Amino acid sequence: MILDKINSPKDLKTLSLDEMNGLAGEIRELIIKKVNTTGGHFGPNLGIVEATIAMHYVFNAPTDKFVFDVSHQCYPHKILTGRKEGFTNPEKYHTYTGYTAPEEGEYDLFKVGHTSTSVSLASGVAKARDLKEEHYNVIAFIGDGSLSGGEALEGLDNGAVLGSNFIVIVNDNDQSIAENHGGLYDNLKLLRETGGSAECNFFKSLGYDYYFVKDGNNISDLIEAFNKVKDIDHPVVVHICTQKGKGCKIAEDNREAFHWILPGTLDENKTEQVFEESYNSITNDYILKKVKEDKTVIAINAATPGVFGWDKSFRDKLGKQYTDAGIAEEHACAYASALAKSGAKPIWAVMSSFVQRTYDQLSQDLALNKSPLTMLVYWGGISGADATHLCTFDIPLIKNIPNMVYLAPTNKEEYMKMLDWSVNQKDYPVAIRVPNVELVSTGIEDKTDYSVLNKYKVTQEGERVAILGLGNFYGLALKAAEEIKNRFGFMPTVINPRFITGVDTDLMNKLKSNHKLVITLEDGLLDGGFGEMISAFYSYSDMKVINYGSYKEFTDRDSLDVLYNKYRLKPELIADDVENVLMAKVH
Amino acid sequence: MILDKINSPKDLKTLSLDEMNGLAGEIRELIIKKVNTTGGHFGPNLGIVEATIAMHYVFNAPTDKFVFDVSHQCYPHKILTGRKEGFTNPEKYHTYTGYTAPEEGEYDLFKVGHTSTSVSLASGVAKARDLKEEHYNVIAFIGDGSLSGGEALEGLDNGAVLGSNFIVIVNDNDQSIAENHGGLYDNLKLLRETGGSAECNFFKSLGYDYYFVKDGNNISDLIEAFNKVKDIDHPVVVHICTQKGKGCKIAEDNREAFHWILPGTLDENKTEQVFEESYNSITNDYILKKVKEDKTVIAINAATPGVFGWDKSFRDKLGKQYTDAGIAEEHACAYASALAKSGAKPIWAVMSSFVQRTYDQLSQDLALNKSPLTMLVYWGGISGADATHLCTFDIPLIKNIPNMVYLAPTNKEEYMKMLDWSVNQKDYPVAIRVPNVELVSTGIEDKTDYSVLNKYKVTQEGERVAILGLGNFYGLALKAAEEIKNRFGFMPTVINPRFITGVDTDLMNKLKSNHKLVITLEDGLLDGGFGEMISAFYSYSDMKVINYGSYKEFTDRDSLDVLYNKYRLKPELIADDVENVLMAKVH
Repeated sequence: MILDKINSPKDLKTLSLDEMNGLAGEIRELIIKKVNTTGGHFGPNLGIVEATIAMHYVFNAPTDKFVFDVSHQCYPHKILTGRKEGFTNPEKYHTYTGYTAPEEGEYDLFKVGHTSTSVSLASGVAKARDLKEEHYNVIAFIGDGSLSGGEALEGLDNGAVLGSNFIVIVNDNDQSIAENHGGLYDNLKLLRETGGSAECNFFKSLGYDYYFVKDGNNISDLIEAFNKVKDIDHPVVVHICTQKGKGCKIAEDNREAFHWILPGTLDENKTEQVFEESYNSITNDYILKKVKEDKTVIAINAATPGVFGWDKSFRDKLGKQYTDAGIAEEHACAYASALAKSGAKPIWAVMSSFVQRTYDQLSQDLALNKSPLTMLVYWGGISGADATHLCTFDIPLIKNIPNMVYLAPTNKEEYMKMLDWSVNQKDYPVAIRVPNVELVSTGIEDKTDYSVLNKYKVTQEGERVAILGLGNFYGLALKAAEEIKNRFGFMPTVINPRFITGVDTDLMNKLKSNHKLVITLEDGLLDGGFGEMISAFYSYSDMKVINYGSYKEFTDRDSLDVLYNKYRLKPELIADDVENVLMAKVH
Repeated sequence: MILDKINSPKDLKTLSLDEMNGLAGEIRELIIKKVNTTGGHFGPNLGIVEATIAMHYVFNAPTDKFVFDVSHQCYPHKILTGRKEGFTNPEKYHTYTGYTAPEEGEYDLFKVGHTSTSVSLASGVAKARDLKEEHYNVIAFIGDGSLSGGEALEGLDNGAVLGSNFIVIVNDNDQSIAENHGGLYDNLKLLRETGGSAECNFFKSLGYDYYFVKDGNNISDLIEAFNKVKDIDHPVVVHICTQKGKGCKIAEDNREAFHWILPGTLDENKTEQVFEESYNSITNDYILKKVKEDKTVIAINAATPGVFGWDKSFRDKLGKQYTDAGIAEEHACAYASALAKSGAKPIWAVMSSFVQRTYDQLSQDLALNKSPLTMLVYWGGISGADATHLCTFDIPLIKNIPNMVYLAPTNKEEYMKMLDWSVNQKDYPVAIRVPNVELVSTGIEDKTDYSVLNKYKVTQEGERVAILGLGNFYGLALKAAEEIKNRFGFMPTVINPRFITGVDTDLMNKLKSNHKLVITLEDGLLDGGFGEMISAFYSYSDMKVINYGSYKEFTDRDSLDVLYNKYRLKPELIADDVENVLMAKVH
């Protein structure tokens, strides 16, 4: 194998073009095999094998600096920078993260995973270089999909006036995660169609010098272009056109489905899909029904329809009652808020980790205007995810914004009732934390009037200890109650709070008469969350409170079991704590 | 007066061009007089008197919808839409807000005050219209300065593909609050210089149809252009060039200084400025000194240098060691983070209310990467500000992000020590809440080693009650202690926490031996803040806690006295509460 000779980018420099093409084939094969085994980003990595080889051939990393956007396409880069064992040796498949990671060595500058950050970050790297009067190339590598994000656009605008070496490689595979949306993409199309010669050029309009590479999977053409911009003394865009999923036919033909794949995807014998009811499926059934009934209902998201199970067929059924804003969460929030304020009924779906990308819009465009929006927050909860994709921060983020109503359903009937109430009401911006657990159905219609805010539900009357099991952790509350009963011989009260954004003061005061301890369980960050609100409520009373949730830390691919042990999110550990506090072992 | 006849936009329609020009003069005079009396946005309103008249002449509000960006330029609009008494009658000067306000009538769609929101909001309004199959014009009105914000750029990209009537008026006065920064502004210049005919056109590259008005203070030219785009069936940009501060020579010549003015600015006889030491001045002295000593020190902000006292002369002294990112807080944060990570020493200044515009960058680009950035947060605290500019949310926002160190100094020496430590350390992203009170100096050098995190300082040993006075409210803590001593005869312990981001567990545990009650005072939102963290710490002990701070609400120009009474932020009210809790009147 040619790759045997490559232990650092230096080793590339002596290869012939033929050898580099051979190397591309080897790398591609390794990626296909590994990702099909572990799961991970597939199409983005296959698409830029050649570009990565050419980059490392022309530039001199780690002296020259690469900043990859999202960095979900950094597998070829990892292979070429001393980490190939993570791909050649199945036992080491999990050694390296799926994103750039400075802890793995000097070739990676930043820990990233959210989109649209590379240009801003790289411009800071370039400015530091200039302040220190050093000389090297700084290269931001960004996909066409990521270009639509506010941070990328702000970064492009500012990067253009750095006045020194600054190279932006735009990797245009004519695809975001799903298809692209936005006027910018017509300009990219025009540039592709004119071989980059169209006068009306988005990048030039921002002040960049501009080079175009028609075949971004051709190493020779890429080397030629990169050599032209190497050591350039001003900001430049190199627009390269690549094939997402290159070299794997099914991925080339199904760019959305093969953006990220589950283990074994390529091995599957396609069988008839068995329908299983899930919180996603009942949400989507509801949306389809409402869209038919009411022409002002509209489903909105920012570039991640797959997270919600909004596949092509679903989107087609929605027609004009669907907007994918592309990677543009700020716009999605403001746009949805304005729709709500203008009498339409928007349902905006967003992944917990990406709610972070639109705080000011939640506060100013949405909450301050009290637009009656329905916001569905997916995947909220503690998980074994990468540090860049933790979904533990949405509760403190949303909960502490005035006017917001944030709901945490615990079963199908409750969720459906909340959703329908939210879509039809006109008073509040409502967020619903879509349960991130297996679907539970009571079979009993929920008749709650959710317009009466902050009323918690006692689901099991008990004594001495009251357990508030929020959303995903309602099941844990029941189990902890059982454990306490078995161990100490009394039955605790179990409460389903349902409302994250406020205290049921009547109920909490009532508990004082025959309870000594309140336990809060939330599937997310403790700091600034639901439990701290309850603690603060009782802070000058005699009631004792224990809050359970995740700590203020960026965990990184830790297993749920490790995390649950650390955070004491297990019935037996909770019972231990109850014993300590009730027996007054802790003061 | 012509204005006497104008009670709604309808009344404009019968005016001749001469009368409209006369009306413009009258409106201009009213704005100058009023703003010079009350203070407020000056240049932006004077610049678009003609444009506002032409808009209301051509379009039919409130059927046609205007969405103003920031809406600091909406005074002429208010005058023409039934609210002229707020400008003609000095007794009514404070009746209407300085921004668009739906509660004032149907001509204002949104409550806004932060920049770069109009295009996204207006695109939602247009989409709602289309879903409802209604027909009217939707117009976003945005200044050139606001264009650089991520939300505006995301909105422009998405607005371009609405496929129906959508009009963006770009009000180009070649000025942000300070001067513009970014490559985009070279394109605006090119368009101005070519009468809009340059092929390389930023707006066209995003897919917009495009019209250019060279003299945006000429009513006749504006009417002609607006008539061309009225009822258009696709997205269009009308690029109008206006004179900021038009009609007031000193404001025309000093566009930055007259963007917003204090009461009486025009009446002042300029005298020699008396130098008074303030937290701003000592910050700026420090920056100037460090910049000279160390070429890697760089001061950064996003378009609001005036907030920090970074005037032209200061900026000029910094030279290349200064970056104004324009209105682009996301970029500013990521850029500063990358500078820090690359070995430079960035000092990034930001107003509390605008920290909200960059949450994901704080979390991902900065905190996850542990970049040793120094972030100065200005104006944090409860105030009588407009609902759009409250500065009470920065503590919950920053405090709950892992890895962040957020400091709250209480005097000059402490602040200087924290600042110098932060700039020179390499371990943490550090934010400092610049005191928003009159400067206090102890005259004693602070020798604390702030690399030992979360060590609070006991400044007065006492008993029974411990008061934690955070940052701005340290003075209140001293006064409350005095009140308690006078009233109940014992001296409470007073503590200066200094660290917002963590609990001094040793000290807090130690307090248990001779204290029954801990009081927390913070100048900001209670929910998710410092006090709740202390309450949660003590939640299963016998210690009682009372948290003081602002409630979760958008207050709107309420006086500090009203707010302090409501939030019980007065020594005598605090003493009342202490009495209630210590006498066990509250359970």
